[in-house]
Amino acid sequence: MGEMSHPRVRLDPDTRREQLLDLGLALLATRTLEELSIDLLAEEAGISRGLLYHYFRNKQEFHRAVVRRATDQMLAVTTPDPTLDALTRLTTGLAAYIDYVETSYEPFMSLVRGASSGDRFLREIYEDARGALVGRIFDSIGELGLTGTPATRILINGWAAMVEETVIAWVQEPEIPRHELVRLLAAALPAVLAATADEVTAPGG
Amino acid sequence: MGEMSHPRVRLDPDTRREQLLDLGLALLATRTLEELSIDLLAEEAGISRGLLYHYFRNKQEFHRAVVRRATDQMLAVTTPDPTLDALTRLTTGLAAYIDYVETSYEPFMSLVRGASSGDRFLREIYEDARGALVGRIFDSIGELGLTGTPATRILINGWAAMVEETVIAWVQEPEIPRHELVRLLAAALPAVLAATADEVTAPGG
Repeated sequence: MGEMSHPRVRLDPDTRREQLLDLGLALLATRTLEELSIDLLAEEAGISRGLLYHYFRNKQEFHRAVVRRATDQMLAVTTPDPTLDALTRLTTGLAAYIDYVETSYEPFMSLVRGASSGDRFLREIYEDARGALVGRIFDSIGELGLTGTPATRILINGWAAMVEETVIAWVQEPEIPRHELVRLLAAALPAVLAATADEVTAPGG
Repeated sequence: MGEMSHPRVRLDPDTRREQLLDLGLALLATRTLEELSIDLLAEEAGISRGLLYHYFRNKQEFHRAVVRRATDQMLAVTTPDPTLDALTRLTTGLAAYIDYVETSYEPFMSLVRGASSGDRFLREIYEDARGALVGRIFDSIGELGLTGTPATRILINGWAAMVEETVIAWVQEPEIPRHELVRLLAAALPAVLAATADEVTAPGG
């Protein structure tokens, strides 16, 4: 983490804030969000608490910004290459997602815990992230030979929950090889959509 | 809720405790777990705080007991009739689960939020419940023509997460008819397991 603090370099406030968030993320690697205090950040950044409050109004705002940053990173590393076909985008996206959860477990869990936290902003960050991941899939289902219906969106959301749960469990206990995990989760999506597609577009009785 | 308090009837402590938990559950219908205080319970039960502490050491223990009770109810109402075939057990179990989430939304959400709460006991209650639901499915996969492997268990767990997420979203926004939701979720399970079954039993490379 030492390489992140260059206290003698004069930086504009935005860059400095970004640097502090990177430091926050790095500190989150070995502790939970609750354990990530303004005091600790100040100490590790080598600056005063007073100066920190110039960048973050309080611990809550700092936490939200760190989780937002973790989420942006997760979305960035899982962004599919648009030149690939839909199925390859799905498997490479899944592989990148698994790598992210494995290497950034605590930041990722902060995001997941935010989903059911009392903090409305953390819930929104989670929902935005889920929405972005599901949106990518939804945008490519035409390519997979499927139609977008309310039922399709419901199922893609459900599949996303399945992926999240499964990857978290796998990181804690990797009972099957990684490539097998990718294959199972990738195969599950078209399987779910296809097996249910026949009646999905019919009006519900 | 008035029918739950019969202060003049002499009851043994266990029965009285059960009654208080039922009252707690009823109060949870219109508020979150955080809003369910010992004060409120005492007031609604028409007994003193002091007497309440005879049954629950503190608010935390009361909350855990209420969530445990909600969970037991959920597992009870979703218990499958063993005389039915596996697929019928699956769809009737799902229908009962949807009914439960709909009619006991806040108690159910207390359970779900417990999964990622800092309270280890609430997490355990959640994990026990998930384990029980997944165990029922796992026990019947032979009947569905499938084999139990580590991959199968991983996928059933993932499917359970899919069901939870989907039903919560559906209760908030019922975009498709209920019977269609049951059909989609029931069809998703064998679809996921079958589409991935071919290589699942092969040793991972």
